[in-house]
Amino acid sequence: MNRQQLIELIKRKHSFLCVGLDSDITKIPLHLQGNDDPVFEFNKQIIDATIEYTVAYKPNLAFYESRGLEGMISLQKTMQYLDQFQNECFTIADAKRGDIGNTSTQYAKAFFDKTASGFNFDAVTVAPYMGEDSVSPFLKFNDKWVIVLALTSNKGAADFQLLADSNDVKLFENVLRTTSKWGTPANTMFVVGATRAEMLSEVRKIVPEHFLLVPGVGAQGGSLEEVAKFGLNHDCGILVNASRSIIFASNEPDFAEKAKAEAISMQQQMESLLKAKGIN
Amino acid sequence: MNRQQLIELIKRKHSFLCVGLDSDITKIPLHLQGNDDPVFEFNKQIIDATIEYTVAYKPNLAFYESRGLEGMISLQKTMQYLDQFQNECFTIADAKRGDIGNTSTQYAKAFFDKTASGFNFDAVTVAPYMGEDSVSPFLKFNDKWVIVLALTSNKGAADFQLLADSNDVKLFENVLRTTSKWGTPANTMFVVGATRAEMLSEVRKIVPEHFLLVPGVGAQGGSLEEVAKFGLNHDCGILVNASRSIIFASNEPDFAEKAKAEAISMQQQMESLLKAKGIN
Repeated sequence: MNRQQLIELIKRKHSFLCVGLDSDITKIPLHLQGNDDPVFEFNKQIIDATIEYTVAYKPNLAFYESRGLEGMISLQKTMQYLDQFQNECFTIADAKRGDIGNTSTQYAKAFFDKTASGFNFDAVTVAPYMGEDSVSPFLKFNDKWVIVLALTSNKGAADFQLLADSNDVKLFENVLRTTSKWGTPANTMFVVGATRAEMLSEVRKIVPEHFLLVPGVGAQGGSLEEVAKFGLNHDCGILVNASRSIIFASNEPDFAEKAKAEAISMQQQMESLLKAKGIN
Repeated sequence: MNRQQLIELIKRKHSFLCVGLDSDITKIPLHLQGNDDPVFEFNKQIIDATIEYTVAYKPNLAFYESRGLEGMISLQKTMQYLDQFQNECFTIADAKRGDIGNTSTQYAKAFFDKTASGFNFDAVTVAPYMGEDSVSPFLKFNDKWVIVLALTSNKGAADFQLLADSNDVKLFENVLRTTSKWGTPANTMFVVGATRAEMLSEVRKIVPEHFLLVPGVGAQGGSLEEVAKFGLNHDCGILVNASRSIIFASNEPDFAEKAKAEAISMQQQMESLLKAKGIN
């Protein structure tokens, strides 16, 4: 999906909601556990319940890899199921990859090249620590995106991302400045955590045009209003992710209904925020 | 495998060689391509030919993930095959993972918890960008290791890893100082590239006791003598990885023989270097 299609999708659905499919098998409702593939069944029902209000889905690879081959089968089925909604949602492999050039080329195939791996994600999250040759192989695919970690939502973000250089430029700012030159706002996004929403205005000074993927609203405590206040640009420019607060809104048979209610609630707030910004 | 067992293994084999199983299906010999699982057959023959001279194997996950489920099956078979050599080699998942705490816990299960995922690696490589909660979940497993990226062997390493803070401490030095406090030399190693061997003496000032995983000898151009000169400590303290220079030494039917010859050549140099250092 290209940038224009993504912006149109956001305007059509009046939403910039991304649903994180952190589908922990130990947390999905008991009544699904007897199913052949409980995680796929869970994801399918979550997707059906939320697709109307959601512009992106973001499976978190760790929750599939931790179940070995079975988990990867659940993920493949989920992505095949999403194929029917190709123009209805953007898909993100939350994988935090990154390695030397020849290896990143293989990771790009793993997430973008369906004939090689069976997967056809629109985007993949990448850690910037190894520099340009770890990121650039992902930029060689048409209409695919790399989403570079800049300022994450967790406590450990402070350990290195906030370290200042001799010019008082923090590491995450250096990451934004440098990596934004490797690609363009049409193939590069950045992860900026909602738990540090006040820093979004600093981020916007460096990358006014880029889309930001914002985790940390919901279970991690970030505020949607704050994120919108500092993060929205004239094209919207943000995707706000919620995982646990939507997919585990209930662990009873009504889980899909409750997930839908949470998604609607977020979409309605987003619609107001977009309208206030004149984006429709 | 614990630290003492690893050191004994090194002394027994007079080797600190790690063979990287970057088993690119497009590069393995033609005569294997008709096999049911050419990559597993290739790995099996490489392992049989090199196990006598090798203390560690390091599958590079990207080369398996790029082939989707088929690739993950090749990797599972390879690790099951290595099970018989449990006391004969250390195993490293070269995966460069790292995410917020609840997600890193899932990645730790993916690589360390055989009942969950089918995999039982001794160690996994981790990117430090997201800080302590992205690393610490891996440290909760007994006799398992986290191998943190410090100074990598690629060109892009210069983009961020060499950035100096206001006290002129480089990012990779901050990573060494900070992450070495999260674990101990019995459960933490660091990646330091052979292409920057002169910096190994700086690294050794910060982490004198820790094992270092050193890629970049061979195809990437690093020198074994330099690495040993600056990197060896009283327990050996280094694992030197070679991937392409061993596993793709030939792409003819003699590939395993040629891989064996390369491994022997490296092991013999290592034996001399260990002897010169008084380690036997």
